[in-house]
Amino acid sequence: MAIKHLLFDIDDTLFASSEFSALARKNAINAMIAMGLDYDYAFLNKKLSQIVLRKTSNYSYHFNDLCKELKVKNPSKFVAAAVAAYHDSKSAIQPFPEVPITLLKLKEKGYPLYIATTGNSVKQWDKLIRLKIALYFEEVFVSDQKNEQFYKKILKSLNTKPQNCMMIGDREDRDILPAKKLGIQTVRVFVGKYSRESVPSQADYKIKKIDELLSI
Amino acid sequence: MAIKHLLFDIDDTLFASSEFSALARKNAINAMIAMGLDYDYAFLNKKLSQIVLRKTSNYSYHFNDLCKELKVKNPSKFVAAAVAAYHDSKSAIQPFPEVPITLLKLKEKGYPLYIATTGNSVKQWDKLIRLKIALYFEEVFVSDQKNEQFYKKILKSLNTKPQNCMMIGDREDRDILPAKKLGIQTVRVFVGKYSRESVPSQADYKIKKIDELLSI
Repeated sequence: MAIKHLLFDIDDTLFASSEFSALARKNAINAMIAMGLDYDYAFLNKKLSQIVLRKTSNYSYHFNDLCKELKVKNPSKFVAAAVAAYHDSKSAIQPFPEVPITLLKLKEKGYPLYIATTGNSVKQWDKLIRLKIALYFEEVFVSDQKNEQFYKKILKSLNTKPQNCMMIGDREDRDILPAKKLGIQTVRVFVGKYSRESVPSQADYKIKKIDELLSI
Repeated sequence: MAIKHLLFDIDDTLFASSEFSALARKNAINAMIAMGLDYDYAFLNKKLSQIVLRKTSNYSYHFNDLCKELKVKNPSKFVAAAVAAYHDSKSAIQPFPEVPITLLKLKEKGYPLYIATTGNSVKQWDKLIRLKIALYFEEVFVSDQKNEQFYKKILKSLNTKPQNCMMIGDREDRDILPAKKLGIQTVRVFVGKYSRESVPSQADYKIKKIDELLSI
């Protein structure tokens, strides 16, 4: 068998990342209202969305900024309520239902599994732990950007050839194109918001659910 | 009625803080072992205790330091597992059983309730939120040290006289002595590790459970 190493994206590939983020923000806003913040949900949601857009989702002080914008006098209790509700929601993430059994079957077939993702490695391991699939993975490769250089580094670290690797992800620009350019086999999973892009995918395989991997 | 404002300590007064911290650390160590860290529990617990002692409990990188000491090669997954288990345990804190009903009865009697504590105000509000008693409190007063100056500041902020205030806490040195010196009424709650001190308390009232407040 040619393929020896399987690389996975996490967000919107192994779990419904965007949906859970939206839910976490909703729960956070409701927790601030429950603590006595006297604004309606739609207004707070709009303000918060603007802050998230401006500061990106990796910023840690969205709720502090929201309180500052609203000129809240003693913001600590609202920030604490929002952060607690947000983290509780983030802790309750679940994988797509077919994910755990598919990963287990791939392990039984002898494939070592890896994560190739952007961001912070402790945060990405935290997601795998929350999703209860951490034990299936050998290593998490992280980088600021998913570009050719990143995939080259992974190949070097695994001491393997591109044709012996397969990258599985939901984003054409990050998961498919740079990996394919190097000769890595690519699988595009059509889930989440990027599945609605109109540009045709150049991935070697196109699937809707991760369990279809087993028949590739 | 003379007493108008009630000030409470949080840790080991409203909940079994030391017990929950010990449990959180135990769960964190077990989570690292479950993730494949190959050392026995007693050894890891000893190492971690030394780090906590050295860096104090307010330090944020105990588990990173532990991995560094053990020369763990890819520490991210162990750090993530430990932090997740630690936070989950900290999120599950419960008040002493008589606390919520006592606070509610005090509110019904018209007393405004406050927290006087050390540390960070968002973290202290987070505890009140986790304990599900946050709505009972008007304000959280925080300071680096619980000394006379801190209690003076609180009196000023509440625009009240010491004899109209009552401070309730488990620690003679922080909750009782400095408050009593200013003329604030003091209640020592004999729970947790400080209840075993042999020095006699100078508090105006001594109780074993918080519901005894209702008959003072």
